[in-house]
Amino acid sequence: MTRTEPAGTPLGDQFHLYDTTLRDGAQREGISYSVADKLAVARLLDELGVGYIEGGWPGAMPKDTEFFARAAAGELALRHAVLVAFGSTRRAGVRAEEDSQVRALLDSRAPVVTLVAKSDVRHIERALRVDVAEACAMVEDTVSFLVGEGRRVFLDAEHFFDGYAYDPETALRVLDAAGRGGADVVVLCDTNGGQLPLGIAETVREVAQRTGLRLGIHCQDDTACAVGNSIAAVQAGATHVQCTANGYGERAGNADLFAVTGNLVAKLGMEVLPEGGAAELTRVSHALAEIANIAPDTHQAYVGSSAFAHKAGLHASAIKVDPLLYNHIDPALVGNDMRVLVTEMAGKASLELKGRELGLDLAAQPEALSSAVKKVKSMEAQGWSFEAADASLELLLLAETGKAPAEPPFTLESYRVVLDHRVGGEVGSEATVKVHVGGQRVIATAEGNGPVHALDAALRKALSPHLSWLDSVELSDYKVRILAGHPGTDAVTRVLVESSDGEREWTTVGVHANIVEASWLALCDALVHKSLRK
Amino acid sequence: MTRTEPAGTPLGDQFHLYDTTLRDGAQREGISYSVADKLAVARLLDELGVGYIEGGWPGAMPKDTEFFARAAAGELALRHAVLVAFGSTRRAGVRAEEDSQVRALLDSRAPVVTLVAKSDVRHIERALRVDVAEACAMVEDTVSFLVGEGRRVFLDAEHFFDGYAYDPETALRVLDAAGRGGADVVVLCDTNGGQLPLGIAETVREVAQRTGLRLGIHCQDDTACAVGNSIAAVQAGATHVQCTANGYGERAGNADLFAVTGNLVAKLGMEVLPEGGAAELTRVSHALAEIANIAPDTHQAYVGSSAFAHKAGLHASAIKVDPLLYNHIDPALVGNDMRVLVTEMAGKASLELKGRELGLDLAAQPEALSSAVKKVKSMEAQGWSFEAADASLELLLLAETGKAPAEPPFTLESYRVVLDHRVGGEVGSEATVKVHVGGQRVIATAEGNGPVHALDAALRKALSPHLSWLDSVELSDYKVRILAGHPGTDAVTRVLVESSDGEREWTTVGVHANIVEASWLALCDALVHKSLRK
Repeated sequence: MTRTEPAGTPLGDQFHLYDTTLRDGAQREGISYSVADKLAVARLLDELGVGYIEGGWPGAMPKDTEFFARAAAGELALRHAVLVAFGSTRRAGVRAEEDSQVRALLDSRAPVVTLVAKSDVRHIERALRVDVAEACAMVEDTVSFLVGEGRRVFLDAEHFFDGYAYDPETALRVLDAAGRGGADVVVLCDTNGGQLPLGIAETVREVAQRTGLRLGIHCQDDTACAVGNSIAAVQAGATHVQCTANGYGERAGNADLFAVTGNLVAKLGMEVLPEGGAAELTRVSHALAEIANIAPDTHQAYVGSSAFAHKAGLHASAIKVDPLLYNHIDPALVGNDMRVLVTEMAGKASLELKGRELGLDLAAQPEALSSAVKKVKSMEAQGWSFEAADASLELLLLAETGKAPAEPPFTLESYRVVLDHRVGGEVGSEATVKVHVGGQRVIATAEGNGPVHALDAALRKALSPHLSWLDSVELSDYKVRILAGHPGTDAVTRVLVESSDGEREWTTVGVHANIVEASWLALCDALVHKSLRK
Repeated sequence: MTRTEPAGTPLGDQFHLYDTTLRDGAQREGISYSVADKLAVARLLDELGVGYIEGGWPGAMPKDTEFFARAAAGELALRHAVLVAFGSTRRAGVRAEEDSQVRALLDSRAPVVTLVAKSDVRHIERALRVDVAEACAMVEDTVSFLVGEGRRVFLDAEHFFDGYAYDPETALRVLDAAGRGGADVVVLCDTNGGQLPLGIAETVREVAQRTGLRLGIHCQDDTACAVGNSIAAVQAGATHVQCTANGYGERAGNADLFAVTGNLVAKLGMEVLPEGGAAELTRVSHALAEIANIAPDTHQAYVGSSAFAHKAGLHASAIKVDPLLYNHIDPALVGNDMRVLVTEMAGKASLELKGRELGLDLAAQPEALSSAVKKVKSMEAQGWSFEAADASLELLLLAETGKAPAEPPFTLESYRVVLDHRVGGEVGSEATVKVHVGGQRVIATAEGNGPVHALDAALRKALSPHLSWLDSVELSDYKVRILAGHPGTDAVTRVLVESSDGEREWTTVGVHANIVEASWLALCDALVHKSLRK
């Protein structure tokens, strides 16, 4: 079994920043992660430095089972975070070790398990249909069985605040059962999201006093107070806070990880992230929005592109004199910027950092760095986004620093794609490309499932006799985002293409009003990038 | 002079629900109201029943001057609300009655004036460049001049919380000056938005004790706590709360009027709206988003279309038994609705609930219900998703229950789309459709920015001479998701199309390996759905 405590944060195990983007956050309408998406989300959260990553519900959801299997097989090497499996206590009248759902939690090999249990007597009696004694036994048995198997266990007390208000004794009995079973943290959940900050603080204080247990907090945003409620709970004594990236979640969503973390770090002075983590908040927020395929909220606290933007007016000149009189924090603290940027990528410091990551010393070429910043900014204004497309960014930086190869592996003359919905309902796609490669002009035609597939097939057919490495490259993922136009302009399409050669994966981006052309640009970048690394 | 107190709310003047959508809310990037827009916003806010509507800054902004002139000329007959003009205290070294900006406030004929004044010593000295004594005189003089002219005056103490933390004596002197001048309310403003709920409550309690003045609260959302901060301030004694519709405002925005009101009414039991007002919250929120030309936030607390939506699964059958166990309030209280999302885990219970929402009694047709469940499950296994596509689901349920119309509005024979990337780099898209409509076979060709745009244009060209209602229908949003295939199968594309006819919005879905065909399916459903509702 691997470690059960987060590594590298100054507060260590004293305070848990616990992320449930992959489980509770995935309840948001429209979100549907692939297993590869889930692995990418977990990697980004680990880069940020959260303490715990709840990966899903193994046994209940096949994708989650696969996620944990691939994580255990070495696809997810976490530096800071500990992986958590979520699940339910045993069913009524069954021994914990004989409950297949509980066994699936063990099989996931996650070192920590968070169990959900009902703590509102009405839910226990009407939904679970057992008495309180059995509900408590279900909690205690399951916790102690998992602890006996070497797992660290947290208990999510579902509907806790409503239950405690209605019948405090039952709610506390459930917590005590978890404590007796050996749970390390009992998490007070505002499952229906109806609480307000002062009430949360009062209840947390009271429960801490009455139980002596280590308390966590899990808030939903139905009163638009999830962040305020979470912070109030921490100020009242909770030392474990559950959040989701960008507040994704069912109904009005959950407490936003980035706002909660910003507040803990900047307002309460708590070192809940490893050094340098806070400055990654903005980047990670945007990258996770990209994977969820949800447009980032420009007005999001701390990390939104407008979070520190000031309309010219009342303060414009005063701001220049003393920006901190008009901002609640220095935006750099959370990796954001006071200017209105299309994204945070377009700063010199971050681009330099990014260059270093890609093996390019941009600090040594200040003019190339300036011109790269300018180029990235102007492309981002047109809808490009390099946050999730390192390979395209690398090509751009190579071009700006004069390090691009003199000769591209191929050049396009033209292409044509024809899509037919024929009489009878059959749908066909056919593409013809004319390219120059290896000193020759090549024309090739191919069919595909759709326009992009046909274009990719025709391009491969034209190039593969000339480029020996091409056959190893596969298009492994493809994402599309329609970007609303500015008034008076048309929408544009942004395409992200993830490629793989069996050894590594790389992502490229293309933007155009026409989705096929946008895809073409990303496909070309993918092949050019491979040709550099071959 | 007209009345200065809100009419028709049970709490009357004891509590002020104060809206600044038209002034502080208009600071949000991208918002630009015409005078007609401003009048429409004010009418909607009055219908809702807010107590005070801050209309703008007459004298400083020409549009605002015109707005007040037209309101005074009778274009704005307010039933509940009182109109407020916003402005600044007199300039340093000038008598209030000689300050042209102060005179413009009188000229606006608004019965109430809210004056903004600096209360942070650093802002007084560095931005205003006067000493504290003169800053206080500016406040007292201007307030007493306006009160002498028959106006009711509120004072916005800008940067109050930061100022009070840094130098409480100066901050309190400014409030006292306003009190001496005759201000009815002094509003503590968290201008930079950096506060948290427990701190706000503590400061409000302290200031109430030390000054004895009537206190208001104005919060910005930079810590994602604007709503929680506002409510905490009210619980600590503030009796005047300033908000903006949907939280529009500079940076991360302001406290959202709808969430604050929902909390005051549903959580604190305060009758801050006239009878029936709360049930208008959802409608007014969406209407104001429409005027601001900002897509409504589907996950907004209380009023978002997903605010009470549950993913089927864990709870669907329990929800049917007792919805209030799974909602923090009855959604009808705020004019919202409980939607049940149909997802991979679609069961009979959730589909039946969904049918009821759409006005179909599936319980009375158990066989149709079974077959619909089977159909939805098998379609979802192929990548269809109905959770965001009510209109497509309604068409499916109508077909399963034998209630679909016998004759579709049109049928497709075939289409062809040609995409060209020509020598020189120009990209073109052209579509030809062959359809049968109104007893005729019609062929039409059109160009577009991309394949879907061209197809939509060609279809409209073919149909619009025959379907009179078609021109009112607009494609308002378009989303694409590529779904990874199961091993051995190909990826498919899921397209969501949101349509609008100016009165309502509906969403349809299409799934196919070919993105253009998927879009076609969703476009067709959108038009068929409209033809049923026309």
